[in-house]
Amino acid sequence: MLTVSGDRAGSPMYMQLYAQLKEEILSHQRPPRSKLPSRRTLAAQLGVSLSTVNGAYEQLLAEGYIAARPRSGYYVCAIDTLQVAEKPPALCPEPEPEQKPCAIDFHPGRIDEEKFPFSVWQRLVRAAASDPMLLRRTPPQGDYGLRQAVADYLFSARGVRCAPEQMVIGAGADALLGMLSYLLDNDYALGVENPVYNKAYRLFARTGHPVVPVQTDKSGIPVEQLPPAGKIVLYTTPSHQYPLGYRMPMSRRVELLNWSCAARDRYIIEDDYDSEFRYSGKPLPSLQSADKNGRVIYMGTFSRVLAPSVRIAYMVLPQPLLERYRRTYDCFSTGVSTLEQLTLRSFLQQGFFTRHVNRMRVVYGQKHKTLTEALSACGQLTPIGEPAGTQVTVRVRNGMDEAELVRRAAEAGVAVYPISPYFIGPMDGRFRGKILLGFGALSDGQITRGVGLLRQAWGL
Amino acid sequence: MLTVSGDRAGSPMYMQLYAQLKEEILSHQRPPRSKLPSRRTLAAQLGVSLSTVNGAYEQLLAEGYIAARPRSGYYVCAIDTLQVAEKPPALCPEPEPEQKPCAIDFHPGRIDEEKFPFSVWQRLVRAAASDPMLLRRTPPQGDYGLRQAVADYLFSARGVRCAPEQMVIGAGADALLGMLSYLLDNDYALGVENPVYNKAYRLFARTGHPVVPVQTDKSGIPVEQLPPAGKIVLYTTPSHQYPLGYRMPMSRRVELLNWSCAARDRYIIEDDYDSEFRYSGKPLPSLQSADKNGRVIYMGTFSRVLAPSVRIAYMVLPQPLLERYRRTYDCFSTGVSTLEQLTLRSFLQQGFFTRHVNRMRVVYGQKHKTLTEALSACGQLTPIGEPAGTQVTVRVRNGMDEAELVRRAAEAGVAVYPISPYFIGPMDGRFRGKILLGFGALSDGQITRGVGLLRQAWGL
Repeated sequence: MLTVSGDRAGSPMYMQLYAQLKEEILSHQRPPRSKLPSRRTLAAQLGVSLSTVNGAYEQLLAEGYIAARPRSGYYVCAIDTLQVAEKPPALCPEPEPEQKPCAIDFHPGRIDEEKFPFSVWQRLVRAAASDPMLLRRTPPQGDYGLRQAVADYLFSARGVRCAPEQMVIGAGADALLGMLSYLLDNDYALGVENPVYNKAYRLFARTGHPVVPVQTDKSGIPVEQLPPAGKIVLYTTPSHQYPLGYRMPMSRRVELLNWSCAARDRYIIEDDYDSEFRYSGKPLPSLQSADKNGRVIYMGTFSRVLAPSVRIAYMVLPQPLLERYRRTYDCFSTGVSTLEQLTLRSFLQQGFFTRHVNRMRVVYGQKHKTLTEALSACGQLTPIGEPAGTQVTVRVRNGMDEAELVRRAAEAGVAVYPISPYFIGPMDGRFRGKILLGFGALSDGQITRGVGLLRQAWGL
Repeated sequence: MLTVSGDRAGSPMYMQLYAQLKEEILSHQRPPRSKLPSRRTLAAQLGVSLSTVNGAYEQLLAEGYIAARPRSGYYVCAIDTLQVAEKPPALCPEPEPEQKPCAIDFHPGRIDEEKFPFSVWQRLVRAAASDPMLLRRTPPQGDYGLRQAVADYLFSARGVRCAPEQMVIGAGADALLGMLSYLLDNDYALGVENPVYNKAYRLFARTGHPVVPVQTDKSGIPVEQLPPAGKIVLYTTPSHQYPLGYRMPMSRRVELLNWSCAARDRYIIEDDYDSEFRYSGKPLPSLQSADKNGRVIYMGTFSRVLAPSVRIAYMVLPQPLLERYRRTYDCFSTGVSTLEQLTLRSFLQQGFFTRHVNRMRVVYGQKHKTLTEALSACGQLTPIGEPAGTQVTVRVRNGMDEAELVRRAAEAGVAVYPISPYFIGPMDGRFRGKILLGFGALSDGQITRGVGLLRQAWGL
């Protein structure tokens, strides 16, 4: 005999009936294919209205618990008993953001966020929020006006020659590299500088591309180390090799460009991740600017110049890849919100970006000077590489290896960073005793104090 | 004899000298390894100051055009002549957004954007713009508060049981499916409903996963059609199969869940893309809610409910995949801007989302009713599938095939859409004469008028 239990008293009568019948069906108390009482019979049995039974039966029908046979009535559907094979394990807790107890943190990824023109950005966000385009999706390659503004900036700052039609806006360099890994057939090997900045080569490896680490020298990737034949795309950071800090000289650039067009199916990815900040001489134009054969894929990001939360990067595709992109168009979309694109577009168009970059070049240049002067006061500490970006690689000549240098610094309350994680495979012995110091987020005082503490900790 | 030409008069003297020397080096007028005049000699020759020559030589040194040998002087570096092997072809123009000259467009992807609470959203954007978190990057899985708010909503609306720790926020369902394709080893086959909504299976195929299309029946994927052994992840849309419109009944759901835990290495992706909108009965809870074994990956998106420009989707990972995600953590980031996450979080937390969904359910329900009533007035037009979402699949019984139905409709100024593009491989003959009508963006009047025009065009 069916009774409606009282503990479901909160929900409507028909839902209470529905829930009870469902339980009976799932537990096989009402066996599969058994007939249900007619609606009138059940209503009479339970002393409920016909509409209550109607509601319950309709819901059960809609969810596939029962089926109606014309001129016969309602039958229980054959529903397997739900198996519970294993107890799901307890949730693994989310990793806490790294806590550095260190008083002074030379983290190479930090930037000086306090100098960001926050109120200007806020004003532009508010203006973009009123733009009727806000609810529209941009074209897959990104807002055209934004691409135009980025292309203009890249031409004047980096000599990059490109039409907005060649540019793809993406949610970070990783996303764009992931897209590239799809664009290129799997028989394209990915040649990467070793050591290498971006871990995106792992994404390439997952899409089935062979990954070929190429040991860099002071000039970057030596051309003669590249595989002599086969499809290949080369990942390189010619403006400021990360983590070694070197800049690729013109001779090597020309060698690489000539290599790229000496055979079919060769491309170069130029990741110009921190090209904005150079503190000596005029910056060397991009590799792309000297590429007359459409072999260089130029990419850069706004996350490092503006703020880590601005997840906008760009990539300039040469013609053959652009055609391929167009053919597989519908697999891709920018993933970048229209709101953020509109805000950044205004920021560029109204000159705030150039102004911010110029200002930060002075700010970081001063910090770089403070750091290198403090280091050079000690004969055993030698900054290597170009004066550029927001980090310096330092050679420490006291016989300690990387791990010991990091550990002793931490004991003195200073976080410094190893370069070994950037190597694919074991680190070459030549790089022993090299340490990465990021200065972007530190004040001049912190930098000087930090170097003083390091000299004590390292016995120098 | 070196002269400084007048056409570079706009730039500083040292840059003019630098540019001219660079040209001479690149053209091999100054041969590789040849010695340059000393700085004093050159200054005297040209009648320029020593500091002009110093500036030019420094720039050439920094860019690697010349090298200094101690106690000897400056020498031209060996720089290859830049090869120009081929002329890059002209740019392929960017595809124009599809122009539909049709007066009435039953596009299945359109939504009613006019009802979006634009002013509320703008207000929340402005508030988010003042949030000090704006410039911070969220954790890789997305802002915790947003995840909490989405988890709360999913529990109450869809019965989804998940902790915020299990949720990953991403820039669209495609991006999340792409991430999944990396998370799963390449020997995981991807089983997909055929026909299938999301073209993301192509991304899986590119990462090397075998793709297994499984022909769906009215209840979804028949379990007996699945490969009997091997690692597999199954992509399914149980709430509202796209494009066929069916809802998976409880019996099939239990079969699928039991299949998923009958062997190791089986997962189900439940894409609940339009679960918010059902117009009859209480919605069936998600498949995930009945999954006791951690085999269902639940995903959904805000692009369809809010606006196409809001590129935020979410995915709930079961425990084993969550562990895997954590191990490969640094390969991934949300790609979703902090600004948009903060805005959406407030929209959810302050109850606007629930209110909007409830309102749109009434709006779309009315449109759905108008459409199905107009269709049902003609005996040869039968809406199939569940009353849900913003599109209806219609069986047209006049002997015409899909292509002819689309063409004749277009001639009458009405855009209707084929279902064949959703099939992997050729379309099964059973589906001949089925057409997709999206009603989200149309008014009641347009819907009625559109169906009238279709009946004329199709001779019904």
